[in-house]
Amino acid sequence: MSTQYKFQGWMGLDKDAVNGNMVWQEYEPKPFEDTDVDIKITHCGICGSDIHTLRSGWVPTSYPVCVGHEIVGHAVRVGDKVKDIKVGDRVGVGAQSGACLNQKGDCEACADGMEQHCASVTTTYDSRWPDGSKSYGGYADYWRGSGAFVFKIPDALPSDIAAPMLCGGITVFSPLKRCGAGPGKKVGIVGIGGLGHFGILGAKALGCDEIVAISRTNTKKEDSMKMGATGFIATDEDEDWATKHAGTLDIIISTVSSPKMPIQDYLALLRLKGQFVQVGAPEDNIPGFNIFALIEKRCTIGGSAIGSPDEIKDMLKLYAEKGVRTWNNNVPMKDANKAVVDMEAGKARYRYVLVNEKHLG
Amino acid sequence: MSTQYKFQGWMGLDKDAVNGNMVWQEYEPKPFEDTDVDIKITHCGICGSDIHTLRSGWVPTSYPVCVGHEIVGHAVRVGDKVKDIKVGDRVGVGAQSGACLNQKGDCEACADGMEQHCASVTTTYDSRWPDGSKSYGGYADYWRGSGAFVFKIPDALPSDIAAPMLCGGITVFSPLKRCGAGPGKKVGIVGIGGLGHFGILGAKALGCDEIVAISRTNTKKEDSMKMGATGFIATDEDEDWATKHAGTLDIIISTVSSPKMPIQDYLALLRLKGQFVQVGAPEDNIPGFNIFALIEKRCTIGGSAIGSPDEIKDMLKLYAEKGVRTWNNNVPMKDANKAVVDMEAGKARYRYVLVNEKHLG
Repeated sequence: MSTQYKFQGWMGLDKDAVNGNMVWQEYEPKPFEDTDVDIKITHCGICGSDIHTLRSGWVPTSYPVCVGHEIVGHAVRVGDKVKDIKVGDRVGVGAQSGACLNQKGDCEACADGMEQHCASVTTTYDSRWPDGSKSYGGYADYWRGSGAFVFKIPDALPSDIAAPMLCGGITVFSPLKRCGAGPGKKVGIVGIGGLGHFGILGAKALGCDEIVAISRTNTKKEDSMKMGATGFIATDEDEDWATKHAGTLDIIISTVSSPKMPIQDYLALLRLKGQFVQVGAPEDNIPGFNIFALIEKRCTIGGSAIGSPDEIKDMLKLYAEKGVRTWNNNVPMKDANKAVVDMEAGKARYRYVLVNEKHLG
Repeated sequence: MSTQYKFQGWMGLDKDAVNGNMVWQEYEPKPFEDTDVDIKITHCGICGSDIHTLRSGWVPTSYPVCVGHEIVGHAVRVGDKVKDIKVGDRVGVGAQSGACLNQKGDCEACADGMEQHCASVTTTYDSRWPDGSKSYGGYADYWRGSGAFVFKIPDALPSDIAAPMLCGGITVFSPLKRCGAGPGKKVGIVGIGGLGHFGILGAKALGCDEIVAISRTNTKKEDSMKMGATGFIATDEDEDWATKHAGTLDIIISTVSSPKMPIQDYLALLRLKGQFVQVGAPEDNIPGFNIFALIEKRCTIGGSAIGSPDEIKDMLKLYAEKGVRTWNNNVPMKDANKAVVDMEAGKARYRYVLVNEKHLG
């Protein structure tokens, strides 16, 4: 069976792609297997990872690359071996939301419940499927990949609201949940951008007692309070903030990716046994610090990337129940280049979503 | 009731004390309360904290100071309100092994099961008791302090073997236990000095599958293997050690206190969800590092200091059962100055113990 549709999308051909120079062109998807699903893409969020990848910021990218791993659309072809998904379903595919594809049953990551670290496929783009084919992302008309990555979107979540949750949302929800965020806990969210705004929304949905937004200036204070923050610290404007708020937070999720973070001051905010989790991914080293901050209060610094398929499903269920709404800026798919440039310039309030208008309705 | 004995010990009068210039002199102990115990000291271990404190390395020390918090001896006076201890018992008092002395029932540290962080008394020396009196340590003939810090030593542990366990031992045992060290786990111990040798002994007593000693050179390889290590890495001599052993360890306890640690390479040794815990306490900042090491494998960096009274009791019980033997170098109390200098020069193999010979037998 051949498909009736073409695989085409916004391709980055080299590092210059990040400057608004992606090119719309056709590409060859992986050969369809009976474990695969084709998705007719209606929405795709723009994620910081897309920017890092377009400019080879983390590691050299294998160009040409089609980025985007916050994909929502409709299943248009479903392999015989795929469970729980049928043609016509409204579905999503998230960042690295893998399940073990090596099928040998000996994947250490999967055995440890960390499927997203599965060695077989580590991302929905700029990677390779087990058959050796390149993987392509969601700045495109169609997506093809393993059904193990694909799940249904709850009816209560509109597609443009759900898409950014599939990477941006889960990236902060997963560590919040694992750190025990909920009633009785005081949470700090460092950096009020796309990830940070999900941090506030997530901590609120989980029922945390206090949610302190931490930003350099007061510019985003009003927005943060609307999202659900109960406090705000402007690190460039508030005097002695680290001293004044010392020892007040149980959990800090840091979403900033600038390596110039005042980490010693952030650690001062932690209470006994507090947990600092870095989810923003700086391209350079973070600064050194005095480790007494960890020794004296038995605190930890951790890191986290994305989340497992089960965590994504839990998050979507909770967010559907609680009526969580992404603050998103929708942009037509044709304007992807401009949106990438605007995203990099920090203009998102708070998450860009590409809308593939010809696939709507 | 007045006592029949004098409180005298080795006093550091200024920073120069660390160079072998402590002075033996009498001092005024705190007024005896009905919650206190007097200990006739037979043994006191020499701990790295003593050195840091003698030279005001961490914070300015409040001279005169009598250091030493690995104290074993016999109870010679016991307050009416002290439970479980009677005159003549062989007892110990460890570092910061406090219990809440503020008696208000509102101590956050104690409520969190972290009595050693109790604000009321934070150490057995260079601190103050709730009544305002200075606290003095164990390089001395007698010790006086709250019975909440004092516990019996199991019969199976000789006094010179037990003393260094009361700070050096618990400092590594506590994080090993909390990190889940035991059967099925692979543990790395960085730095094979006083703390590190307890790391190997502790990991072995806990039944860990593999125990890798990590040192700069191979000098201590033979000793490490005798202590129970199953592997050895010499970071200045083995080529590509971080790559060769990448992803092999569940837990790393770092006992070094040089801030020049190759932390990025240590983190590379961790498996998924691995835990790196710093217990050595550098006086300067640790180096910056690429936090991807934590993000990609969901690892954590933590810190730990000492342990709670319950943890010390658990440790002593296990070590008595397993026949754990400190590798100690006994030195007469009169030679404390030389022992401090030798300790600082790295000559301990692996823990100096001051023996107060006139109190033996």
